[in-house]
Amino acid sequence: MLINLMDHLVARIIELKSPIVVGLDPRLSQIPGHIKDEIFLSQGKTPEAAANVIYQFNQAIINHIYDLVPAVKPQIALYEQLGIPGINCYLKTITYAKSKGLIVIGDVKRGDIASTAEAYSHGHIGMVEIEGTSHKIFDEDFITINPYMGHDSVEPYLTDCKKFDKGIFVLVKTSNPGSADIQDIITAAGQPIYHHVGDLVSSWGKDLIGKHGFSSVGAVVGATHPEEGKMLREAMPHTFFLVPGYGAQGGTAKDLKGMFNKDELGIIVNSSRGITVAFQLDAYKNYGEANFAQAARAAVSDMRKDLMP
Amino acid sequence: MLINLMDHLVARIIELKSPIVVGLDPRLSQIPGHIKDEIFLSQGKTPEAAANVIYQFNQAIINHIYDLVPAVKPQIALYEQLGIPGINCYLKTITYAKSKGLIVIGDVKRGDIASTAEAYSHGHIGMVEIEGTSHKIFDEDFITINPYMGHDSVEPYLTDCKKFDKGIFVLVKTSNPGSADIQDIITAAGQPIYHHVGDLVSSWGKDLIGKHGFSSVGAVVGATHPEEGKMLREAMPHTFFLVPGYGAQGGTAKDLKGMFNKDELGIIVNSSRGITVAFQLDAYKNYGEANFAQAARAAVSDMRKDLMP
Repeated sequence: MLINLMDHLVARIIELKSPIVVGLDPRLSQIPGHIKDEIFLSQGKTPEAAANVIYQFNQAIINHIYDLVPAVKPQIALYEQLGIPGINCYLKTITYAKSKGLIVIGDVKRGDIASTAEAYSHGHIGMVEIEGTSHKIFDEDFITINPYMGHDSVEPYLTDCKKFDKGIFVLVKTSNPGSADIQDIITAAGQPIYHHVGDLVSSWGKDLIGKHGFSSVGAVVGATHPEEGKMLREAMPHTFFLVPGYGAQGGTAKDLKGMFNKDELGIIVNSSRGITVAFQLDAYKNYGEANFAQAARAAVSDMRKDLMP
Repeated sequence: MLINLMDHLVARIIELKSPIVVGLDPRLSQIPGHIKDEIFLSQGKTPEAAANVIYQFNQAIINHIYDLVPAVKPQIALYEQLGIPGINCYLKTITYAKSKGLIVIGDVKRGDIASTAEAYSHGHIGMVEIEGTSHKIFDEDFITINPYMGHDSVEPYLTDCKKFDKGIFVLVKTSNPGSADIQDIITAAGQPIYHHVGDLVSSWGKDLIGKHGFSSVGAVVGATHPEEGKMLREAMPHTFFLVPGYGAQGGTAKDLKGMFNKDELGIIVNSSRGITVAFQLDAYKNYGEANFAQAARAAVSDMRKDLMP
């Protein structure tokens, strides 16, 4: 039986009793002053300095959570907006997280026609060929994918998932209010679009199911939609869910109940701000800004208790 | 009356009699050997060397087409797959194209929740704030956007379009076969999803309509779907279409007829391989590989005659 990356993720979740991924979405406005002051004073208020601030922040967070959670999820937009130094920071963050044993889910949400998707896939989860030599570039473990352009826009990733034992999470029902605009439209067949997309995602992942019964082709399903999540769990028994929207966006542990299967498996829940800038929340204020990483660790512990009581 | 970036694009199309955007989607396998041999021999088979090859190729293409077309459209995936050197090449290509008076459409197809979309928008078409200082990062003129996550995932771009006179093209009906999987699904209201998305795109763009009657919020509509394109033109009179799929993907000038309005305006047609590697096509083989850029120029001239006879 196939033992794949999704099995590894599931095994780590079981081992750590922690279906949690920490989102690394660093915003300068939320990073403690002592990190910023030192770097911006010596390096200037530049994208390079901002990227160095973020990397120092990320390292501290990773150092304090790597033994409590199986995975981190850097959101590439927050790095890409700083241009080259930002992308460099994204790459360094991936490498550092992996060196600590963490699985890395690159939140890139790419989506394009097949010949273009192939370039994204090679760069992010596969290998890029240059005159007969092969190069790993970003080398995330999983990446997120947008399904709007259909099957041929997803196939190149499936090829690389098989070839390099990687995984993807495809957007199905996202956590934001605007997800209703297209995803909730009812089709002539009487089901919402997200349900139709869920069926597509199940079919795309059918050749990549591992020994735990889950495919390396997962789905993004927001914590803010408990009813929809329950329905999708029933319709997609072999699909693992990456669940954003817990905490800051309003999703609670109760909302997630229906997304687990009978073995209490099947989801990994993202928290970004709720962990990384926990020191700004009332519950963790006593740590103080200087101990932001310890506050993050405490927030992960509490989230674990909340999800797996 | 508002005079905006879309007016500038329309004015250039009229001036040059050329509703054409040249797609810069460079693939090493298609770049002439003399460029590759020199650079790979001296620099090694590295991503840095590959990015240098691509930049040299792009410069030559731009030098030979900048006075014939209003715009170029670099596809970021082809650069992103090379990591930092690739992103650097993407940035240099944007800067070089602008120095030649070209409008740059960054084909990035980003899409994410509002707080994340804001980062993409600031980085690509707006400005990034670093401790009270403002920085332009990618600074494309237009970028392409994926609508699957709905209105709040698009609003940050609308804000920057207004603030910095930029534009976006939102995916509506894409040129690839898989576009049928989600975009063609018929809703309970009896219309296909792409039509519903078209209505959303029209509404998102209604405050950004310029003197030529077109909004800076455009739509991507594939040349491979002439009937759908005609229907969308009627339903979206104020929306400019970015049209991929001409040439290599099978779309012809005849297929585009219904997408123009009565003034013969309303679309800009992309051709990538059909222009940049025209030297590989039978019609332009006589130029020889060494004169690939002259072949590209001839292909643009022929495309112009094909579209505007």
